[in-house]
Amino acid sequence: MSDVIQQLTAILEQRKKSADPDSSYVASLHHQGLNKILEKVGEEANETIIAAKDSEQTGDTKAVVYETADLWFHSLVMLSHLGANGIDVVNELAKRFDMSGLEEKASRK
Amino acid sequence: MSDVIQQLTAILEQRKKSADPDSSYVASLHHQGLNKILEKVGEEANETIIAAKDSEQTGDTKAVVYETADLWFHSLVMLSHLGANGIDVVNELAKRFDMSGLEEKASRK
Amino acid sequence: MSDVIQQLTAILEQRKKSADPDSSYVASLHHQGLNKILEKVGEEANETIIAAKDSEQTGDTKAVVYETADLWFHSLVMLSHLGANGIDVVNELAKRFDMSGLEEKASRK
Amino acid sequence: MSDVIQQLTAILEQRKKSADPDSSYVASLHHQGLNKILEKVGEEANETIIAAKDSEQTGDTKAVVYETADLWFHSLVMLSHLGANGIDVVNELAKRFDMSGLEEKASRK
Repeated sequence: MSDVIQQLTAILEQRKKSADPDSSYVASLHHQGLNKILEKVGEEANETIIAAKDSEQTGDTKAVVYETADLWFHSLVMLSHLGANGIDVVNELAKRFDMSGLEEKASRK
Repeated sequence: MSDVIQQLTAILEQRKKSADPDSSYVASLHHQGLNKILEKVGEEANETIIAAKDSEQTGDTKAVVYETADLWFHSLVMLSHLGANGIDVVNELAKRFDMSGLEEKASRK
Repeated sequence: MSDVIQQLTAILEQRKKSADPDSSYVASLHHQGLNKILEKVGEEANETIIAAKDSEQTGDTKAVVYETADLWFHSLVMLSHLGANGIDVVNELAKRFDMSGLEEKASRK
Repeated sequence: MSDVIQQLTAILEQRKKSADPDSSYVASLHHQGLNKILEKVGEEANETIIAAKDSEQTGDTKAVVYETADLWFHSLVMLSHLGANGIDVVNELAKRFDMSGLEEKASRK
């Protein structure tokens, strides 16, 4: 079975290395720096909360799932910018719940 | 290979069903309701951002990984409260990056 | 002595009444609705926090003052949208500190 | 007419100088440091947004006014901690709207 967070971590590392801020949204975020990335994390957290309040009224969870994906995505970019990654987060969660975590594949092709 | 988000989703669903708010932190959050859960999501997002700014100065990523795990954890509780789950989020991320996502295991033991 | 919050409250009420979203930024926010206004409140709170962390390093308070003004301004627009106003907030603060508050001037020209 | 923000600024400066963290909530926040103060700013911003969404449903603005007062109060403590104050914020707002601002009363008793 695939592990999406692990694959996404590899993709984000690759896009971070791209020198050209026009090549991708991720490269552009890194180019703009940590404050810009943190503004996006805060913005997505806030939009998640607003979508959750709307979901409470409507029963529709589509928007809150979408905003949570945005929030997780931008927090992965933040971790990558600081030299950490989503595998660290998943392993931290695994540890808290006595699950086996993910292995870093340094030699990933 | 294990999938941590999938396992955690199953654990959170189980704890949500627990009638007794004293039985677990998760049951207690559900008992206190959506606003309390959203306060925690906002709080953890904010602590993640503060930890990221400190990490920028110190180079130490331990706290920011820990706070991101808290943020993801509480957003999973929020989704569970609203009738969605982390598999939806992972599948949304997978779709955006052309990856194969996770299958819900309805018959999970 | 002038009272800035009181004057600003009167200005914001006037701009809210403007039917044309192109006439001012405030009218445009009301036109876009509560969620848009709350996204701005959250965004400005987050930018205030990031600016405060930078101020901690640099000793320069210019940006954090500017972002706090943005935060207060957008929270005033939010209150106006919901039918409350900044005078209510100032009076709440005055009450907490045993100070005399502000009087609403209903007949303000 | 009284100016509440100006009076509150003077009160907050006085409480900041208090050496004893047990003497007041404000002294205790300064003692705990900037990160604790910023956690409170973020928490109150988030509670303001949640209260605004509830107000949208109920029409009752009491809670959103109360939370906004909490938000402004903690942002005043933050500014004081960094060596700025609420008069700077009010003057910034006044400047934007072509109003006359507040004068610092350095010799305030």
